[in-house]
Amino acid sequence: MRQAGRYMAEYRALRERHSLLDLCRTPDLATEVTLQPIRRIEVDAAILFSDLLLPLEPMGVRFDFVKGEGPTIENPLRSEADLARIRRFEPRDALSPVLQAIRQIKGELAGRVPLIGFTGAPFTLASYAIEGGHSANFAHTKALMYGSPAAWHRFCDLLADMAADYLVAQIEAGVDAVQLFDSWVGSLNAHDYREFILPHTRKIFERLEAYDVPTIHFGVGTGAILEQLRDAGGDVIGADWRIPIDEAWARIGPDRAIQGNLDPTVLLAPIQRILAATDDVLARAEGRPGHIFNLGHGILPMTPLEQVQALARYVHQQTRI
Amino acid sequence: MRQAGRYMAEYRALRERHSLLDLCRTPDLATEVTLQPIRRIEVDAAILFSDLLLPLEPMGVRFDFVKGEGPTIENPLRSEADLARIRRFEPRDALSPVLQAIRQIKGELAGRVPLIGFTGAPFTLASYAIEGGHSANFAHTKALMYGSPAAWHRFCDLLADMAADYLVAQIEAGVDAVQLFDSWVGSLNAHDYREFILPHTRKIFERLEAYDVPTIHFGVGTGAILEQLRDAGGDVIGADWRIPIDEAWARIGPDRAIQGNLDPTVLLAPIQRILAATDDVLARAEGRPGHIFNLGHGILPMTPLEQVQALARYVHQQTRI
Repeated sequence: MRQAGRYMAEYRALRERHSLLDLCRTPDLATEVTLQPIRRIEVDAAILFSDLLLPLEPMGVRFDFVKGEGPTIENPLRSEADLARIRRFEPRDALSPVLQAIRQIKGELAGRVPLIGFTGAPFTLASYAIEGGHSANFAHTKALMYGSPAAWHRFCDLLADMAADYLVAQIEAGVDAVQLFDSWVGSLNAHDYREFILPHTRKIFERLEAYDVPTIHFGVGTGAILEQLRDAGGDVIGADWRIPIDEAWARIGPDRAIQGNLDPTVLLAPIQRILAATDDVLARAEGRPGHIFNLGHGILPMTPLEQVQALARYVHQQTRI
Repeated sequence: MRQAGRYMAEYRALRERHSLLDLCRTPDLATEVTLQPIRRIEVDAAILFSDLLLPLEPMGVRFDFVKGEGPTIENPLRSEADLARIRRFEPRDALSPVLQAIRQIKGELAGRVPLIGFTGAPFTLASYAIEGGHSANFAHTKALMYGSPAAWHRFCDLLADMAADYLVAQIEAGVDAVQLFDSWVGSLNAHDYREFILPHTRKIFERLEAYDVPTIHFGVGTGAILEQLRDAGGDVIGADWRIPIDEAWARIGPDRAIQGNLDPTVLLAPIQRILAATDDVLARAEGRPGHIFNLGHGILPMTPLEQVQALARYVHQQTRI
């Protein structure tokens, strides 16, 4: 999950002078913001500071972030003709500032911790492009998916190619691991996931097999489709807090690693409750290799930094061999 | 789920002249809107037209519906002192227009179909009052829950008393069944549900045991806490589309009925897909007694009425004994 954010004073200070997109598109700024949490919190990896929507613009989908409302897309895709207008882009040209940031971050990190790159998976990226922003029910997305399955599959196949192109470019620029965010795919049931999503997401992970980097496959509220996410691919499967991590892992199987699964709102609680909830996650993962302790979703803006710092310290204390 | 709504032309016509709250608070209008879907769709029950938030106002929480944005609460509850200010109200006084509407609807229905009343469960009602509207992460709600557990429990105990008072008043006014909506409780895991919610929701269902009406317990995205919802109570447990209804029923157990579970976005699909998805739900429920065919959440405004009509007709054809 994005580590930098409004819960950090140094991030808020930068955001007073620069828009979110400026931070993402300016290598010096993206480097600085990526490193902010590394300086303050005992995390085991840096996460590239970027935004899921960045690839939309070179596809021809213009968007902006409206203060307090999240992303807004000017011309959301609503028809087969809209989907057919989308063109594949070359990330080395269109997203070169991101790749430049990766090279700078790798230099600054000098091997202290690895760097994780990421992009959005087909369903999640499609849902932003089609809904025009956040959505409660993904009605327009599913209407196109159910109503125009051939156009949907062509569109998602293209999104999969572009996601793989972009992750490969990030790997070649130096990231040590990649994460595929299918944040909103938990709105589908297993049947629809298998029909409309799995082949496309699998294609991305198959492209990545040629590279020697770990892959992470993440979603929220995916308790009903964990087996399907696993079948689509990923060395590590992300799980949110709704399902106990031992149950999730049993369903995913012992041959995959797991990432999770503290509820980020627990970081708003008194420290004793944070530590007790952390103990529960660690006990359920039983110290098995292949558990990456993490939050089940991003850090909330109102989170006190000291609580995040205390959590990271505590996890290290409890898991030191 | 609310049956009437913007997908019906006659509802949209009324809404041009009246606000949502006017419809809820004017017995003649609430009666008319409740009956609109009964006239057009082969449903087996009428659902009282009302709004989950209506009980907030007599508690001292003022709100309004802002066009296109859903509910907005003027003074959201954010502290223990805010929670302590809430006072129990008498629904026979404060919500008498709703009870008057129930009597009128019962008269108009003349026994053709039963009438289902409803109210919001403690977590869902608390989340609106605390967040100030819809929420993606329930951060303020959970911060109060984790940070001020004693105040949280006092507040939810009071919300449970008021929910039970209101449902009892609806039963005495004539409804034939009652539904408790805990729409957003699927954001909690089983551990937190048991600690923070279950005792309060159970109290509501225990109060209702003295009355000879079926009770329905509904939530969305509750795949990880179906057993906990069952333990809290309800003759019928609602399940959304994320989990196959046979799996949900196996976990809930054979001694409860089940309601669900077609994805409402499927109603935006071509008719053949609607019927195939319906066949799947019906086959999984195997014609067992105790299955109430329903959508997993409310009908979307962009749904074509003819699709809803065709679905209701089809379910009756397929399940006629």
